[in-house]
Amino acid sequence: MNILVINCGSSSLKFQLIDAETEKLTAKGLCERIGIDGSQITFSPAGGEKIVRQVPMPDHKEAIRYVLEALTDEKTGVVKSLDEIGAVGHRIVHGGESFAEATIITPEVKKAIEDCIDLAPLHNPANLIGVDACEALMPGVPMVGVFDTAFHQTMPEEAYLYAIPYRYYEQYKIRRYGFHGTSHDYVSHRAAELLGRPYEDLKIIVCHLGNGASVSAVKNGRCVDTSMGLTPLEGLIMGTRSGDLDPAILEFIANKEGKSIGEIMTVLNKESGVLGLSGGLSSDFRDLENGSEEGARALKAFALRTAKYIGAYAAAMNGVDVICFTAGVGENSVNVRASICKDYLGYLGIGIDDEAAKVRGEEKEISTPDSKVKVLVIPTNEELAIARQTYALVK
Amino acid sequence: MNILVINCGSSSLKFQLIDAETEKLTAKGLCERIGIDGSQITFSPAGGEKIVRQVPMPDHKEAIRYVLEALTDEKTGVVKSLDEIGAVGHRIVHGGESFAEATIITPEVKKAIEDCIDLAPLHNPANLIGVDACEALMPGVPMVGVFDTAFHQTMPEEAYLYAIPYRYYEQYKIRRYGFHGTSHDYVSHRAAELLGRPYEDLKIIVCHLGNGASVSAVKNGRCVDTSMGLTPLEGLIMGTRSGDLDPAILEFIANKEGKSIGEIMTVLNKESGVLGLSGGLSSDFRDLENGSEEGARALKAFALRTAKYIGAYAAAMNGVDVICFTAGVGENSVNVRASICKDYLGYLGIGIDDEAAKVRGEEKEISTPDSKVKVLVIPTNEELAIARQTYALVK
Repeated sequence: MNILVINCGSSSLKFQLIDAETEKLTAKGLCERIGIDGSQITFSPAGGEKIVRQVPMPDHKEAIRYVLEALTDEKTGVVKSLDEIGAVGHRIVHGGESFAEATIITPEVKKAIEDCIDLAPLHNPANLIGVDACEALMPGVPMVGVFDTAFHQTMPEEAYLYAIPYRYYEQYKIRRYGFHGTSHDYVSHRAAELLGRPYEDLKIIVCHLGNGASVSAVKNGRCVDTSMGLTPLEGLIMGTRSGDLDPAILEFIANKEGKSIGEIMTVLNKESGVLGLSGGLSSDFRDLENGSEEGARALKAFALRTAKYIGAYAAAMNGVDVICFTAGVGENSVNVRASICKDYLGYLGIGIDDEAAKVRGEEKEISTPDSKVKVLVIPTNEELAIARQTYALVK
Repeated sequence: MNILVINCGSSSLKFQLIDAETEKLTAKGLCERIGIDGSQITFSPAGGEKIVRQVPMPDHKEAIRYVLEALTDEKTGVVKSLDEIGAVGHRIVHGGESFAEATIITPEVKKAIEDCIDLAPLHNPANLIGVDACEALMPGVPMVGVFDTAFHQTMPEEAYLYAIPYRYYEQYKIRRYGFHGTSHDYVSHRAAELLGRPYEDLKIIVCHLGNGASVSAVKNGRCVDTSMGLTPLEGLIMGTRSGDLDPAILEFIANKEGKSIGEIMTVLNKESGVLGLSGGLSSDFRDLENGSEEGARALKAFALRTAKYIGAYAAAMNGVDVICFTAGVGENSVNVRASICKDYLGYLGIGIDDEAAKVRGEEKEISTPDSKVKVLVIPTNEELAIARQTYALVK
């Protein structure tokens, strides 16, 4: 069965068509500038040539129409008709406390996703538009919602509650939710598979280090802590997001510069992270390794923050068996991984195999055979994970 | 030489007179409600009876006058004249980046303390008023400033910089400063003494757990990280302070309740922490151990947060030799210490001696002889530390 995986943003839409039985990618692509002048669709059939078309896409329904057209195109398409698409898996950012796993989308489910708009005002509305557009164009095809927050719903109360008046949790559901759940889920399971050990017996720390970055602690098969919180702003230093800081800094900046809280949030989300720390050099980690003092400053702070989260989660789980690195930086930055593991984590009994540790973008054990904690590089594959979860519900 | 130690708040003033040679307390006391109706001074000579006097104290100078009168009183005083007070040590909350150690207060030093008012708008002005009042009443007696932030000035850049635009550090000196420095300094040194090992050879984590709470990492004689930041709001869960949270929560609450950023800061400083988490039960940890669900919730979250900081700092130092508990909760709460050490820290090779661990308010090694990390209870003594540092500068 072919599963169409849709990741719908406010003005963009990423898609993949995956054969659920073989888990092979059939085609993938991207619609950009939806609702804006100059919109275009990029379509890449597996093994074929990339096709870019500039076409007007006034809304997401129109974008989906072009996606389906590209998939079924007589010459360059990959399926004969829409009948060959068995289900659509939608990435939904925020499932609040309602969704601890993927679910077939019904009117009630849509209502529950709407109820979480408060918690993800930019993402959930776009996700819902994608669902509506697919429903309109593919009547009868089951739609499945796969939530970024679902994997973290197993966290215990002491990990998800903030130390603020409890009524904020009761009234507004202010708590730690965590994100990148599909990635943490996929990578932690893959780690157990690679080691040939039962998932339920392991203490796993997954470092999803990309432009957005988060760490999770998975103990005996359940996520018990994660670094992103109510929103994806908390935790690690990211490309442009600050991660953790003294909340009083917001008031300090507000008083100094007469900024509104909304303006400060923009600074913390878009001008901070390694971009801010490097004095504006770059949010791309590759650019930071240019030998400059500014780049080095940002990279050192990033490595320390990440190492501290690994240490913190080793404590939260009273131990750690496996540490996994994934996503752009985690899969590819040999230096960042080395800094985290060798400058800070030797006390855990970690040994790093320098030759193996040169790996980029491939599954590899980079710790030495006698390392007390296994260290793995595991490329994430959120689309495959979404396709799997979708298939499991509809097959 | 007798050293008068002064800790001056906006409407209160704590004092101790300490014999610097013997390090014995000669007398101590407290002025309350300075500048408010119903002000009073409490004076306790060592070994004598406590005296409480309700007297008008319109300002701090008047309060200091009563302190000096009490110390030199013919019947109940402890010295014959002010000539027997060799120096005054003032606790100063914020020394910014100007003070990495205690210093004799000159007009230039006062100016530098004034320059830090921005960073501690409630504390530094009160501290300066105390200095001025003492200078006026004790001409010729050296005044020494001992800074709460000084001990942490050795932190490396990657630990003290926030991942926000670098210009905020350059322009406004927004960075991690840390507080409780006098306590972290005293307790970490005392730990090395008790273990009979050179301070410079040890990796020490000090948990100062009181109504305000912070953790520090001291590696080879230098503080390398600490949990409080620009202000004392960041880090651990405290009596009424939230410690760490997703900065986006401020915007969320502002939008939900129409609160100003200043109003939210009041919530985070005064209505949060274990008080908030326990649904308003209490900010006093003793009250939380009443068997209630609310109290247990707050205590579990407090223990997890503290354990995570210990784990994080073990990573930051690439190991840990000694963990110290101090301040009200750290010295006295057998259950909180047990929860931190036994539920979370076994992976560090820590063993706890349950009998020894029953200690309250006394110096004691509470780990087992074969524990890979020593765990110590060490009552803090900030006043003695201030007296020592003052004496070292003036003797």
